[in-house]
Amino acid sequence: MYREQYSRYVSLVEETIEKLLPKTEAVCPKEEGVMPQLLCESMRYSLLAGGKRIRPVLLLAACDMLGGDLEQAKAPAAALEMIHTYSLIHDDLPGMDDDDFRRGRPTNHKVYGVGHAILAGDGLLNYAYECLLGNAAQYPENLQGHVLAAKAIANRAGVCGMIAGQSLDLSSEHMEPDAERLGYIHAHKTADLLTAPLLAAAYIAGASEEQIDALRRFGYCVGIAFQIDDDLLDVEGDAALLGKQTGMDAQRGKMTWPALMGVEASRARSARLWDEAEEAISIFGERAWFMRGFAAQMRTRKS
Amino acid sequence: MYREQYSRYVSLVEETIEKLLPKTEAVCPKEEGVMPQLLCESMRYSLLAGGKRIRPVLLLAACDMLGGDLEQAKAPAAALEMIHTYSLIHDDLPGMDDDDFRRGRPTNHKVYGVGHAILAGDGLLNYAYECLLGNAAQYPENLQGHVLAAKAIANRAGVCGMIAGQSLDLSSEHMEPDAERLGYIHAHKTADLLTAPLLAAAYIAGASEEQIDALRRFGYCVGIAFQIDDDLLDVEGDAALLGKQTGMDAQRGKMTWPALMGVEASRARSARLWDEAEEAISIFGERAWFMRGFAAQMRTRKS
Repeated sequence: MYREQYSRYVSLVEETIEKLLPKTEAVCPKEEGVMPQLLCESMRYSLLAGGKRIRPVLLLAACDMLGGDLEQAKAPAAALEMIHTYSLIHDDLPGMDDDDFRRGRPTNHKVYGVGHAILAGDGLLNYAYECLLGNAAQYPENLQGHVLAAKAIANRAGVCGMIAGQSLDLSSEHMEPDAERLGYIHAHKTADLLTAPLLAAAYIAGASEEQIDALRRFGYCVGIAFQIDDDLLDVEGDAALLGKQTGMDAQRGKMTWPALMGVEASRARSARLWDEAEEAISIFGERAWFMRGFAAQMRTRKS
Repeated sequence: MYREQYSRYVSLVEETIEKLLPKTEAVCPKEEGVMPQLLCESMRYSLLAGGKRIRPVLLLAACDMLGGDLEQAKAPAAALEMIHTYSLIHDDLPGMDDDDFRRGRPTNHKVYGVGHAILAGDGLLNYAYECLLGNAAQYPENLQGHVLAAKAIANRAGVCGMIAGQSLDLSSEHMEPDAERLGYIHAHKTADLLTAPLLAAAYIAGASEEQIDALRRFGYCVGIAFQIDDDLLDVEGDAALLGKQTGMDAQRGKMTWPALMGVEASRARSARLWDEAEEAISIFGERAWFMRGFAAQMRTRKS
């Protein structure tokens, strides 16, 4: 039942993306609201590259759990995936991670060139807000909820959120692991964009303060645990590859949890966070079945 | 009187920017709402690099002209300058224009490196929307006006607006001049971000449809005339430098109006547009004194 529901949410997200960002053949569009062909294609290339759609699924699932109107949450869910995607396109650029491949396909700048990849990222970021604001304007009876939802997304995605995490991450390359820095980077680079959809759903559905706090805690725990697990999976991958245990992501020179506190302590910390995440959503009782399934699925992932 | 008023608007914009984006010494901030030091510094470096503040001044002036509340327009004006600044930072990057200097200072990526310059641009773009949404939430009695204002900005700055113009501009390098392409590039890359502040002010001040149409026409005419004059000033600069008239911006391989239709026809077209701009705002009568002064000032600029 959990898997079917996950697929249903993913389909809803992808239909919405297709509606908000349809293909165009116009090189130099004459109609209002039509994008130039190359810009549209480069945005679609990365936005429709697959991926688990975790953030928009969390937004839709939280909205459902809170008894909100899913129709009102579709565009915000798609907008959040646009923000996630722009951050990947820009992260992959030379001067950032300088990656040639993502999810088995050439990165955006490898296909369209650096200039167009920068614009594809800028375009997705700006279009996310255009969609959020356009959607808000369609629900005058819930305008405040939509404004607070968009504000929460901007806050978590922004200069005190995800971008802050990316900035500190970039400044910390080839530094010795440091718990304070690493905590900050993971809280902002990873956890903030997993909390954003939960808060956005809460404002759209008119959740109580207590519910908002619970969702914030769930997002934080899931985000940090998710990142620790990522680091652990990398270490295990490297270990399998190199035939030895290593705590350093040597290729990138990035800080990781295993490098900081060792593999066993990292595993223990991740386990505690997954427990705390489950505890946080206990206030929703039966209605949290999907969130519980989500946490269980993430906790046991192998890649 | 015009100059004094212009300075007053500029001071208001710069005070607002200083309030919204204060300096920070925190490398790894512990407080909510504080940015990492390097990110903040790189954003401030470009945002406080001077410049004429044309777009935020237009927003404040249009709000004044329409009898709107200037207090409500300060943050949107600053947000618009953030959007303009992010577009300059990203335009200057390698892969785009690859410029080392802007306004006599090293460009953002020359000071902070390409990665941090990408993030400074992303940060300013996202923070613009964070400020717009935060400001909107402060005025529940005018929430719809603020949502429509932010939506107009997103629309004009975005993938069918400024970014669309940048994208087609980038794809058109080293192409033969083409009236349709050049018209599209200038309408979107330049005019849209001059129309955005006028529309935003109109929605914040609750303007009528007739007033909105007049402002849209004014913004379009000013934007295109401004760009033609820019091209003409470049040609005259090149001509003075090279001792001959040339219609090509050879260094960049970019399309220009003089290259397309010759210097004289370009001058005539610019003059017609400035006349049309003045005509468009005649419906505001005496209240348009500042806008008229603005157009007169721009029309006779020598740099």
